[in-house]
Amino acid sequence: MQARSDMIRREGKTIAFVPTMGFLHEGHLSLIKKARQLGDAVVVSIFVNPAQFAPGEDFDSYPRALERDCDLAEKEGTDVIFAPNKEDLYSAVFQTYVSLGELPNHLCGISRPIFFRGVATVVTKLFNIVKPHFAIFGEKDYQQLLVVRQMVQDLNFDINIVGSPIVREPDGLAMSSRNTYLSTEQRTSALSLCKSLKKAQTLLESGTTDAATLINEASDFITSHPETVIDYVAICDPETLEDIKTIDKSALMAIAVKVGVTRLIDNMILKVAGM
Amino acid sequence: MQARSDMIRREGKTIAFVPTMGFLHEGHLSLIKKARQLGDAVVVSIFVNPAQFAPGEDFDSYPRALERDCDLAEKEGTDVIFAPNKEDLYSAVFQTYVSLGELPNHLCGISRPIFFRGVATVVTKLFNIVKPHFAIFGEKDYQQLLVVRQMVQDLNFDINIVGSPIVREPDGLAMSSRNTYLSTEQRTSALSLCKSLKKAQTLLESGTTDAATLINEASDFITSHPETVIDYVAICDPETLEDIKTIDKSALMAIAVKVGVTRLIDNMILKVAGM
Repeated sequence: MQARSDMIRREGKTIAFVPTMGFLHEGHLSLIKKARQLGDAVVVSIFVNPAQFAPGEDFDSYPRALERDCDLAEKEGTDVIFAPNKEDLYSAVFQTYVSLGELPNHLCGISRPIFFRGVATVVTKLFNIVKPHFAIFGEKDYQQLLVVRQMVQDLNFDINIVGSPIVREPDGLAMSSRNTYLSTEQRTSALSLCKSLKKAQTLLESGTTDAATLINEASDFITSHPETVIDYVAICDPETLEDIKTIDKSALMAIAVKVGVTRLIDNMILKVAGM
Repeated sequence: MQARSDMIRREGKTIAFVPTMGFLHEGHLSLIKKARQLGDAVVVSIFVNPAQFAPGEDFDSYPRALERDCDLAEKEGTDVIFAPNKEDLYSAVFQTYVSLGELPNHLCGISRPIFFRGVATVVTKLFNIVKPHFAIFGEKDYQQLLVVRQMVQDLNFDINIVGSPIVREPDGLAMSSRNTYLSTEQRTSALSLCKSLKKAQTLLESGTTDAATLINEASDFITSHPETVIDYVAICDPETLEDIKTIDKSALMAIAVKVGVTRLIDNMILKVAGM
């Protein structure tokens, strides 16, 4: 992959990179479409990264479908698919990690303490292997996007990080490879995440600027659905992820909920009228 | 620097990189000479890295001589000198570190617990800025060389790490920017480091293979000199840095001693006859 990227670069061409864990859905395909617009060559990686799963999380059961993924990625104009094995990226003596000090102390980082270390580490590795000019990340994993941006700035990666909007099912459910875990009933419960975000925006527009009130409304709505256990419902600064008390400018509302055994996340930027 | 490196690479030329903290001596110049042999373009960085100094260490007093360094580096055929300010590399919101799990739990990592995190982090940053094909590190900082090699392997940097032998004064003292701190008397005491290494090799050749005996001999010899306080005298595996009890193959003997307020290090590969 490094030799291939060197060749592309020596021809004066740019590389746009979409890192994924595979089991591609429309969300991923929208990232590949964006990559296709940005770079001369599009590289998609498919790698379920063990370093970002804690023991007891769903590393082993995470859905995989390499052949189907390759077909889908190629149809979107992917030039190179990089799909290493676990052993290719993590040797027996592997011991080097990239970690951040502040950003992981919020939202998903609290219930998944090694998650962002795993993400920052594998993204560093993939950047060094693929050598892209652009890398495209979905805004569904909003905190991950911030972590990658911060890491790129702090470690001086010469890479342009591009965010891409959440892609949703027609009924509003944010696309996720993990949606495949949901039963029909659970899928209905899962809809409470996006619905509660929309409801918060509506309440904000009608004058409710107190974050605690919006969080309580959303939490009550979600837990009124079967099999839901809230990890967090937060309203915070879109850059620092620090909690916000009163919404007087754009704020991130972010939600993580277990529906049955499936952990789902969603988020929305709440917008104050006239801002 | 990144644009300059891109330009060099697009011309199909290779970059050989020597990272330094400045105050160049013959040791550094030997690294630049090696770089001159390896790469089409030679880049030398001069940066006293705050992240590898703990509070109370000599970050503020570390010797600096940028103009003289530039002259010396240019005379050795350096093409580009990269000398950023502290603020260029560490923003106010800097929060991303590269750290290793095992290698820092030995030798200098014990008395300097944040040192190798600082080294791994700044080397990552410099690699991303300079984009070298080769990077040359002195074997005087033996553990640092191992840490960088491991990091390069673990994080998939496409960079060839090259070690270069210790350069010594005519009387044997290993070259170090910190030697400038030493008084005449302290310099005599400092010679006990290299002398004790040579003595250990002689003892080994005459049949003393017990590491504890060699360590005791060296320690006694060093502390018989004024103003010496031993940090460590160790005999260990040259790859893993795990302690060795009986020397039956090549072993690293490594020493760190405070002479007055100046912390000095030295090392030698002890060689068993016929191996």
